Amino acid sequence: MKLSLSRRAQMTPASPIRKLYRYADAAKQKGIHVFHLNIGQPDIPTPREFFSMLKKYAKGVVPYAPSSGFPKVIEAWRTYYRHLGIRLSAQDISITTGGSEAIYFALLAVADPGDEIVVLEPVYTSYVIYAKMFGIKLVPVTLNIRDGFHLPSHKALVGAITPRTRAIVICNPSNPTGTVFTKREIDIVAGIAKERGLFIIADETYREIVFTKKKAISFLSLAKVRDNVVLVDSASKRFNMCGARIGCLVSRNKSIMASVLKFSQGRLSSPFLEQLAVMPLLRNSGQFTHHLIHEYRGRRDAVIRGLSGIPGVSAYSPEGAFYVIVGLPVKDADHFCQWMLQKFHYHEQTVMLAPAEGFYVTPGKGKNEVRIAYVLSAPKLSHAMMILRRALEVYIRAVH
Amino acid sequence: MKLSLSRRAQMTPASPIRKLYRYADAAKQKGIHVFHLNIGQPDIPTPREFFSMLKKYAKGVVPYAPSSGFPKVIEAWRTYYRHLGIRLSAQDISITTGGSEAIYFALLAVADPGDEIVVLEPVYTSYVIYAKMFGIKLVPVTLNIRDGFHLPSHKALVGAITPRTRAIVICNPSNPTGTVFTKREIDIVAGIAKERGLFIIADETYREIVFTKKKAISFLSLAKVRDNVVLVDSASKRFNMCGARIGCLVSRNKSIMASVLKFSQGRLSSPFLEQLAVMPLLRNSGQFTHHLIHEYRGRRDAVIRGLSGIPGVSAYSPEGAFYVIVGLPVKDADHFCQWMLQKFHYHEQTVMLAPAEGFYVTPGKGKNEVRIAYVLSAPKLSHAMMILRRALEVYIRAVH
Repeated sequence: MKLSLSRRAQMTPASPIRKLYRYADAAKQKGIHVFHLNIGQPDIPTPREFFSMLKKYAKGVVPYAPSSGFPKVIEAWRTYYRHLGIRLSAQDISITTGGSEAIYFALLAVADPGDEIVVLEPVYTSYVIYAKMFGIKLVPVTLNIRDGFHLPSHKALVGAITPRTRAIVICNPSNPTGTVFTKREIDIVAGIAKERGLFIIADETYREIVFTKKKAISFLSLAKVRDNVVLVDSASKRFNMCGARIGCLVSRNKSIMASVLKFSQGRLSSPFLEQLAVMPLLRNSGQFTHHLIHEYRGRRDAVIRGLSGIPGVSAYSPEGAFYVIVGLPVKDADHFCQWMLQKFHYHEQTVMLAPAEGFYVTPGKGKNEVRIAYVLSAPKLSHAMMILRRALEVYIRAVH
Repeated sequence: MKLSLSRRAQMTPASPIRKLYRYADAAKQKGIHVFHLNIGQPDIPTPREFFSMLKKYAKGVVPYAPSSGFPKVIEAWRTYYRHLGIRLSAQDISITTGGSEAIYFALLAVADPGDEIVVLEPVYTSYVIYAKMFGIKLVPVTLNIRDGFHLPSHKALVGAITPRTRAIVICNPSNPTGTVFTKREIDIVAGIAKERGLFIIADETYREIVFTKKKAISFLSLAKVRDNVVLVDSASKRFNMCGARIGCLVSRNKSIMASVLKFSQGRLSSPFLEQLAVMPLLRNSGQFTHHLIHEYRGRRDAVIRGLSGIPGVSAYSPEGAFYVIVGLPVKDADHFCQWMLQKFHYHEQTVMLAPAEGFYVTPGKGKNEVRIAYVLSAPKLSHAMMILRRALEVYIRAVH
């Protein structure tokens, strides 16, 4: 008899960030240097303190950690949040295998198959992939590049809510747009969640990277949605350790945490060594993150300056994180991105970008957009923008 | 409005292996030493070669790995399988965050909500937890302690299959029973899967730990179910690195691997450092695993000898892995296990076991059974069995 895969497996989309890798690999085989602006993998060194601590534990047996993480690791995360002015108890925190696992635990805790979750599109792609895997319907509220992807009206947000809605997802500062939502915007989301009995899944992975005078507001600081908030966090970006796979899920809702404990038991343990090695960074996080704003502001400026010289490109100046969504003068950005890897090079160099269509839930949206992750030094980014400009010139002549 | 969790979150069971931890912690607070036989966390050192390799990579940036794992890591797994006589291509292997993640990817790839998967009960508890999380119905075929948990008749197996059945799960050598299935049994499962168009999710984490003359047969060695097999594997047990979180999923079915790639992209990366550090162990696995049989055979014998002196206990001699399911002369093994932690000690010592009810899908089954993981030295295990004997004496007088 014939074997067939699950429908969910068939319907899960490939990641827009990673699906073009085989073309990048092929380009590299031909000796072409690829500037990777497709993925949020910064070139900034992981702090030495992480490695010193790692080596301290790297001996004897590497055993399972407790499912929710070691008590002393949870204590270090509490200290980290306390320095941000957020008081948490140990029971509010569960260590996860990267922010990715916190996302998936949050989704499963609040939504059954067929339930709906409101997302702001463009949305971080892992939400799209996990929703398909778990049978959850994402209902998009479309944000606009002209507004720098800030929130639409209260009415537009409320209009997306149905009796099956279980939660609103908000990433602040935003991946993939770099938008930092204002106090007013955060309050609107909180008000709607409170009124409608919805969870807020708040992804605050990029908290420290904000270029405006005001800091990003954490949903954990809003007393009125105390029970509604399920926070996703990660050590990956602020400490430059994407491959360490350490994050956490935070909620003051005891039922959420009881469920997350059961989910955590299913996978037994997060990485033993890395969760311990991140402790010194959490205890003095400012020391390791204070240079990020300056560095990424310079990078953002290099990208925006480079883009401003390219005819037909639409962009805005993102307020945080290290991403920007850019409208290109092409019909199909996916095709263009693949073409840049397969058919184009400028003096043996090319650029890899993430086609933005995969960050949208609404079919057909974002077809001419890409996400740029500004994860290289400012001079490299300026050079990459020049290559992008040349590529667009050649592509438009050839294809249009 | 009221917030409520998903039904799946509410219905996910706590792990029988880990749910009594708070009582163990409380016992330790009182100064009582707890012999942990509840979890498959061996006391055997992780090979030094792992740490040397880890330190080599522990510098600079800790970046994401490719979603399926680094090509050279996949190559090391290919070498490992080749030494077992199994030829694989690089496309057949995907690195996962522990065997746990391979289990969950396998389940999602083959079953939609409401679909059925046949399991042999007692079954490894993570399957039960994941099935609830993903809306998959587990249909149990009950094995019997009197047969050492070997397979029942062909008829009993086929009787569990319905039009909604998508796969059969088999763990060989078995967690939680220690059973090593014979060639005949493996062939029966393969034959049914082939005939009915079912996937075989084969968990071979304990492959190297077999006490009989014949080795465990890998489902990957059976040509006729080439497309049916989805293998779950892990570095945790054979290399004593449960906290490293490195496993893999292996299948020659290209559709399965295409789906697993998409699932992997959702979580971006497995741990960067550990997947690289395990390479030298994979390339010469025999060197690191050859002592396991002797060690665990001695441990098994200590446990079985200890149990044989306890009135009313039923057991058998498991052929592999490092577990045994034991029938106790109590009505409620869950209560007894909690009691041993809360109310009992023998000269400030007690034993933590996993109540076996959580390893059964059928309600009420296994209520008088426990799983013992023989993960301590033989003298410690003999001592722990003596404590268990005393505890049973006291408990039966007090409770019955």
